[in-house]
Amino acid sequence: MTTGLSTQDFAKLLDTTAAQTETLLGQLLSDSTLPGEITRPHRLMEAMRYSSLNGGKRLRPFLAVASAEVFGVPRPSALLAGAALECIHCYSLIHDDLPSMDNSDLRRGRPTSHKKFDEATAILAGDGLLTLAFDIITRDEVHSDPAIRLALTRALARASGIGGMVGGQIMDLAGEGRFGDREPPDVAKLQQMKTGALLKYGCIAGAILGKASKEQYAALDAYGHLFGEAFQNADDLLDVEGDAAALGKPAGQDAAAGKTTFVTQLGVDGAKARLRDLLKQADSALTPFGAKGDVLRAAARFVAERQN
Amino acid sequence: MTTGLSTQDFAKLLDTTAAQTETLLGQLLSDSTLPGEITRPHRLMEAMRYSSLNGGKRLRPFLAVASAEVFGVPRPSALLAGAALECIHCYSLIHDDLPSMDNSDLRRGRPTSHKKFDEATAILAGDGLLTLAFDIITRDEVHSDPAIRLALTRALARASGIGGMVGGQIMDLAGEGRFGDREPPDVAKLQQMKTGALLKYGCIAGAILGKASKEQYAALDAYGHLFGEAFQNADDLLDVEGDAAALGKPAGQDAAAGKTTFVTQLGVDGAKARLRDLLKQADSALTPFGAKGDVLRAAARFVAERQN
Repeated sequence: MTTGLSTQDFAKLLDTTAAQTETLLGQLLSDSTLPGEITRPHRLMEAMRYSSLNGGKRLRPFLAVASAEVFGVPRPSALLAGAALECIHCYSLIHDDLPSMDNSDLRRGRPTSHKKFDEATAILAGDGLLTLAFDIITRDEVHSDPAIRLALTRALARASGIGGMVGGQIMDLAGEGRFGDREPPDVAKLQQMKTGALLKYGCIAGAILGKASKEQYAALDAYGHLFGEAFQNADDLLDVEGDAAALGKPAGQDAAAGKTTFVTQLGVDGAKARLRDLLKQADSALTPFGAKGDVLRAAARFVAERQN
Repeated sequence: MTTGLSTQDFAKLLDTTAAQTETLLGQLLSDSTLPGEITRPHRLMEAMRYSSLNGGKRLRPFLAVASAEVFGVPRPSALLAGAALECIHCYSLIHDDLPSMDNSDLRRGRPTSHKKFDEATAILAGDGLLTLAFDIITRDEVHSDPAIRLALTRALARASGIGGMVGGQIMDLAGEGRFGDREPPDVAKLQQMKTGALLKYGCIAGAILGKASKEQYAALDAYGHLFGEAFQNADDLLDVEGDAAALGKPAGQDAAAGKTTFVTQLGVDGAKARLRDLLKQADSALTPFGAKGDVLRAAARFVAERQN
């Protein structure tokens, strides 16, 4: 793996984007209304902020920013696209944690939304974040060309909807036997939908903002796809081998839930070998960008090697 | 009230648009994937269809079609915008019916989504419909000009989000005392957000599609606002005076829930007088359109006089 970026330098870049995303989300989630809005009820905004302004690595916005930077796109544009994407991610966590879904009381060591507030507020905070994402991605500041903003909007809807993230969540529940006979899910397809689609969207958003050529778009699409699988593969390995303190949640949750994962499918060694292979492929997918792909190369290495 | 349209002729127009909306939604909610979608899980699609393809007056799509027709916009464009709007409306009903919200077992005489399927499926079907709405509204077939589609998308996000419908729902719950001390809600503001914003969006969508002048836009905005209040006012009156068989649900539900409504605020006679006044105002708001506003005039009269 060739990369001109040290782990420390990469960590700094990640932190900077995370801090900028946090600031931007804070502004986007203020109680102040925009034209066309009547009032932003305080309790709703409070619940939306509670689940969005909680730090985190902001990996999805980072992918949007890093992919856009390959084309020299101004950072504020990419940060807005990243913020829209993060709103979708945060809404999905709120809804996934609900009692009727994964029934989780804690998320990153803090009470989940329905525990901190109540179930109705949590559902509406999720609905609000989902809807706000589509408001943000259409804004003039994202790009001067309406066709670009429209392409970003549609791709976001596809990645997060029935053929992407929402569809992935119902497949995950079906795999647990929630709707009758338990059918072992197609792990690769499930991962592509439930977690992969949004991660890949970050890369695609950068390509759309950067008016990528067909070849460049295909390269980022391929990279995003590989990144998503590497992310999930590492996640599945962490659930088996990870340290609960570093994870901020108990390890072994997948096994306890009887989930089919990359690890149950390939074994620990097989999953690790696959992860190495994915990193190599991600590396070569970025070939068209030369050294400009180094940040994305480092990002793939980062998710593969992360401890939480 | 001057209108060149008989009640029967209006009913025919409404039926036609409803049937066309039903057909279109059936196509949009098929199991076939679109580019960027991986697969559409059958159970999810089934739940989305169950709550969307159930007849109904399709009042919101009708407003979009009728407003667009004022400007001679081709019907397929307006129907797509109307279908996107209807997806938002249907998702909101699924989520509103959930046990943690209004806890309703029946909707139009059929089991609600979480009763027919389960709570997790119902939440995801709602999330799926909400997301699909933003997919539909961005499609090329809606309008050849990306700037128009973008304006439609953003207005839809504002009408259905935190400063519109989602915000209205949390205000409604707050008014029931769900989050502590019961604060009598501002009925007008609550109505504008919870039900008014989506109805008004139908009119605004027509204006955007029709490239309305500032004056024309303001006229449809004003009409949409008045239509929304008339709709809710009539709804509140029906809850007091309506016939359970025609309504398809028990009357008196508002009083039982201790809700503040236009009727509790103005009394039955006061609410009726206000309704007559709203119709007059809606009539004059349409003055700039002359006879071309007749269908919208008839629509306002229809909602005011409806029995269910």
